[in-house]
Amino acid sequence: MAILERHDKDAVAHLQLNAPERLNALSDEMLAALQDALEQIAEDRDVRAVILSGAGKAFCTGHDLKQMTAGRQHEDGGKAYFKDLFDRCARMMMAVQAIPQPVIAQVHGIATAAGCQLVATCDLAIAAEDTRFGVNGVNIGLFCSTPMVALTRNIPRKQAFEMLTTGQFIDAPRAAELGLINRAVPADKLADETNALAQTLTQKLGAAVKIGKRAFYEQLQMPLDQAYAHTGNVMVENMLHRDTEEGIAAFIEKRPPDWSQ
Amino acid sequence: MAILERHDKDAVAHLQLNAPERLNALSDEMLAALQDALEQIAEDRDVRAVILSGAGKAFCTGHDLKQMTAGRQHEDGGKAYFKDLFDRCARMMMAVQAIPQPVIAQVHGIATAAGCQLVATCDLAIAAEDTRFGVNGVNIGLFCSTPMVALTRNIPRKQAFEMLTTGQFIDAPRAAELGLINRAVPADKLADETNALAQTLTQKLGAAVKIGKRAFYEQLQMPLDQAYAHTGNVMVENMLHRDTEEGIAAFIEKRPPDWSQ
Amino acid sequence: MAILERHDKDAVAHLQLNAPERLNALSDEMLAALQDALEQIAEDRDVRAVILSGAGKAFCTGHDLKQMTAGRQHEDGGKAYFKDLFDRCARMMMAVQAIPQPVIAQVHGIATAAGCQLVATCDLAIAAEDTRFGVNGVNIGLFCSTPMVALTRNIPRKQAFEMLTTGQFIDAPRAAELGLINRAVPADKLADETNALAQTLTQKLGAAVKIGKRAFYEQLQMPLDQAYAHTGNVMVENMLHRDTEEGIAAFIEKRPPDWSQ
Repeated sequence: MAILERHDKDAVAHLQLNAPERLNALSDEMLAALQDALEQIAEDRDVRAVILSGAGKAFCTGHDLKQMTAGRQHEDGGKAYFKDLFDRCARMMMAVQAIPQPVIAQVHGIATAAGCQLVATCDLAIAAEDTRFGVNGVNIGLFCSTPMVALTRNIPRKQAFEMLTTGQFIDAPRAAELGLINRAVPADKLADETNALAQTLTQKLGAAVKIGKRAFYEQLQMPLDQAYAHTGNVMVENMLHRDTEEGIAAFIEKRPPDWSQ
Repeated sequence: MAILERHDKDAVAHLQLNAPERLNALSDEMLAALQDALEQIAEDRDVRAVILSGAGKAFCTGHDLKQMTAGRQHEDGGKAYFKDLFDRCARMMMAVQAIPQPVIAQVHGIATAAGCQLVATCDLAIAAEDTRFGVNGVNIGLFCSTPMVALTRNIPRKQAFEMLTTGQFIDAPRAAELGLINRAVPADKLADETNALAQTLTQKLGAAVKIGKRAFYEQLQMPLDQAYAHTGNVMVENMLHRDTEEGIAAFIEKRPPDWSQ
Repeated sequence: MAILERHDKDAVAHLQLNAPERLNALSDEMLAALQDALEQIAEDRDVRAVILSGAGKAFCTGHDLKQMTAGRQHEDGGKAYFKDLFDRCARMMMAVQAIPQPVIAQVHGIATAAGCQLVATCDLAIAAEDTRFGVNGVNIGLFCSTPMVALTRNIPRKQAFEMLTTGQFIDAPRAAELGLINRAVPADKLADETNALAQTLTQKLGAAVKIGKRAFYEQLQMPLDQAYAHTGNVMVENMLHRDTEEGIAAFIEKRPPDWSQ
């Protein structure tokens, strides 16, 4: 079994973190496998959506602490290795948002530290009701500074500050209230719910979703006038797409669109 | 009947989108009428608040798709027309926030695409409980990229991403939970509620509301230290206003203020 | 009695605003006392967390309007004094976030105007259920422009705009829903709850909390890639801390850490 399993079905790429004995820690190998898989999916025209899940008891519990500790053996005490590790991790997180297809986190068990960051980073997330979320590095003296980047872009700041400094967990219904996930569902419905959401996405015009996802993250970082100038151009590009012309014509004529994609 | 009706009462300008047969689409004519009305109101010292509503079954369903489709007849396939259209639309949206008076959206029926953007753009919004909100352009292959600018500045990002990529609707109570509107009220109370809110606003010192509304949007886009430097100057300007001196004196002396405005 | 009381217990500095007859207004004297206390605490290695509360009926009702009115006697009508006052107030607010220790607002009674700003500014806040929050300067003709800076960085914008322009109050459960505070508790449990939260914080590695708090506010103002580059460096610094090495080793070995701090 690979450390990251991929199987594709009905235009959805299912990626499963597969190191259950290490609670799917983001080891060097796992980060590399995720980076590769995301880059391949980005180029794969047959994939319209991605579901990211974890094998075993936990979705993901963050970095691999044993591997990090081994990194201290370097002459510099691990400094260069750690720097490179956090760079690779951030690059993988940004790749989740950079690929054209929406990525849905299918979360169960535990999502902590960089595992919670991964949930926060995915475009969409559905979790089993009994999932617990935490950014609890502070409990072992390692503040979750990189997970915080993703977390604070999802939930209000006082709630984020409390999670980060107390290390306490929240459950899935609370995560949904705060905006960390889209919704909590019974554990035995989790796969069905994420599949249904993914199937909804695959029915859309891929070019429109691709255009939109990219613009989503771009415009969030712009002042209002620039955001409008940019997305105005995006809308023009979208309008001139052949399939969009067909989609609008079909809507006006009250018939289903005949899309090439 | 004009495409945009205005009547003023008790210092409130009531603007009503009045193209019910087209579900109040933001056609070229509607955008121009809104732009004109907002610019006139900006100069009108007798208007202290604006209520924006829609005639017929829907508040507003966004751009006029038939008119846009007709625009494809130009030699360039509509490129220049579309660019200009989205520029005009963005200019109108920004005018809603640029005029000195607070603008309240009074929403019923349906608010979709650029109609949902208009709700998100208004300073305040109250909706009938059975109103449905959506940014559903993706369903016809046209991702709601410009509406997304306003939407993502109102609600958490995962919830916004879901609305944008699934095209699914949310109801008014959910819109209130997420921050898209201030509150949902029974349909038969909608006009009363927006009027009561507008009347509350008209009782305030107009100069203070004007100063504050402008600073509200300015400081949101600044880093913290600049935001404080800017609003500190705004507070000084406000303090030196003759009517503010009277307002504070009246408060200390426990009497109603005698304001010139 | 000093205008600001401090007593330290179990590594927590308890600061109490102590001008109950003026509802703990942020007078020149109170601002100076807070600034001094925060600067002293920043250098005090024995303090791991701060609890900020108010004596008497209210937490804090904002600026001292009588003192501000007296400032109008200057030749310039108070312009220079007001400018300096808002600068000093902003500096104190930013100091709350700049000191290395987490600051918890323990809120009861009323928190209005700059008093509400102080709650919004604290890293964490717990309030008695019957506390009322408002940014109600608009009622006397002085829009709460500086409080708005902190408020709009805590709660969604339409809800902030409504509070600012109507001057209406919200209660503590609503403040918790919106993100202005962490939670509302029964009044007779308030001190116990803030103490318990502070004690949780004091058990963490001080160096990690210090590193994390600073990075929290820094990264919030950066675009995503810069935020990751910055917090990646912060994580490296944190990893190389002697006590973090011990914390991680202890976790792997399933024993309590033996921290020097």
